[in-house]
Amino acid sequence: MAPTLLTEEQRKELIPKDWEMVVGRDAIKKTFTFKDFNQAFSFMTRVALVAEQMNHHPEWFNVYNRVEITLATHDCSGLSVNDTKMADIMNQFFNQLHQ
Amino acid sequence: MAPTLLTEEQRKELIPKDWEMVVGRDAIKKTFTFKDFNQAFSFMTRVALVAEQMNHHPEWFNVYNRVEITLATHDCSGLSVNDTKMADIMNQFFNQLHQ
Amino acid sequence: MAPTLLTEEQRKELIPKDWEMVVGRDAIKKTFTFKDFNQAFSFMTRVALVAEQMNHHPEWFNVYNRVEITLATHDCSGLSVNDTKMADIMNQFFNQLHQ
Amino acid sequence: MAPTLLTEEQRKELIPKDWEMVVGRDAIKKTFTFKDFNQAFSFMTRVALVAEQMNHHPEWFNVYNRVEITLATHDCSGLSVNDTKMADIMNQFFNQLHQ
Repeated sequence: MAPTLLTEEQRKELIPKDWEMVVGRDAIKKTFTFKDFNQAFSFMTRVALVAEQMNHHPEWFNVYNRVEITLATHDCSGLSVNDTKMADIMNQFFNQLHQ
Repeated sequence: MAPTLLTEEQRKELIPKDWEMVVGRDAIKKTFTFKDFNQAFSFMTRVALVAEQMNHHPEWFNVYNRVEITLATHDCSGLSVNDTKMADIMNQFFNQLHQ
Repeated sequence: MAPTLLTEEQRKELIPKDWEMVVGRDAIKKTFTFKDFNQAFSFMTRVALVAEQMNHHPEWFNVYNRVEITLATHDCSGLSVNDTKMADIMNQFFNQLHQ
Repeated sequence: MAPTLLTEEQRKELIPKDWEMVVGRDAIKKTFTFKDFNQAFSFMTRVALVAEQMNHHPEWFNVYNRVEITLATHDCSGLSVNDTKMADIMNQFFNQLHQ
């Protein structure tokens, strides 16, 4: 079943408060900052493992301790429940790591 | 010893032909395209291991099977031998992987 | 659907020739040798990504450039088609990497 | 400079209390248990990055959420300060991860 665009109500309920809308595009983004590259890349590895399980891959940029992530769903050209689920998992992984 | 900017002669000799200059910045870039995310992320893991060894980290963007890399050296605000060495290693890792 | 034990015919057909039976246990094993730790760990990363997708995890030992792998299926206490599928994928990943 | 065997005094001081001696070999071992494979493999990734930096690689076994590690130094055929340093770092990585 192809993912469908989130409704306005779903957006209010499901998009985590610390993620923001991308300007000019139906997508959300967040920047995660870690202690060092070691922490940042182990976070990316956790996300990579989930991305393959979900077959839903982030757009992400990394330099040293910083990981900037954009989430959107190709199949519906905008935000689906896969994006908010992935955002929740990333927040959880980040919070599980003492800095 | 802090890295120093490459001379013009070094640039001609050391920058791999398939990397290009970034416009408006003393840096080089290249986009690597893989078969899938699995290959792309294993390439990133190889590069991450070398980056920590060299204490020289790329600026990189990934989505699915594509990895876009920019290399420059913070300590000399431009290209040093560390960047061309890293570019060579990335090319080697890419070429070692049958697509 | 829980995985089921391979029949004798399936074993002859599906177990790759370069994997061998573990003595005293219904499991298969193989040792992969790489050029260095960098190659070995990137192979492990590829396998890890697939293991999470399949929800089927190897028993593996690594030191430096050597990865020793044992495959069996917990849910049927022996070899299932998940093990031979995983063995094929590991062989493919190994063969895709120029040494 | 090749690493040298730890003295008796250094062993008392430097070997973390939750690591134990391997029987019949001058090496230490510890088993780390995580919530799931995702956590276990991200821990292994952090360790891999440090192992390449230190050029000191663990002997490790993983299945699902469990990572069993043995540390010894090849160049002195026994425990060196590299092993206790690595053990400390592994303990730190483990403790930084909320389970």
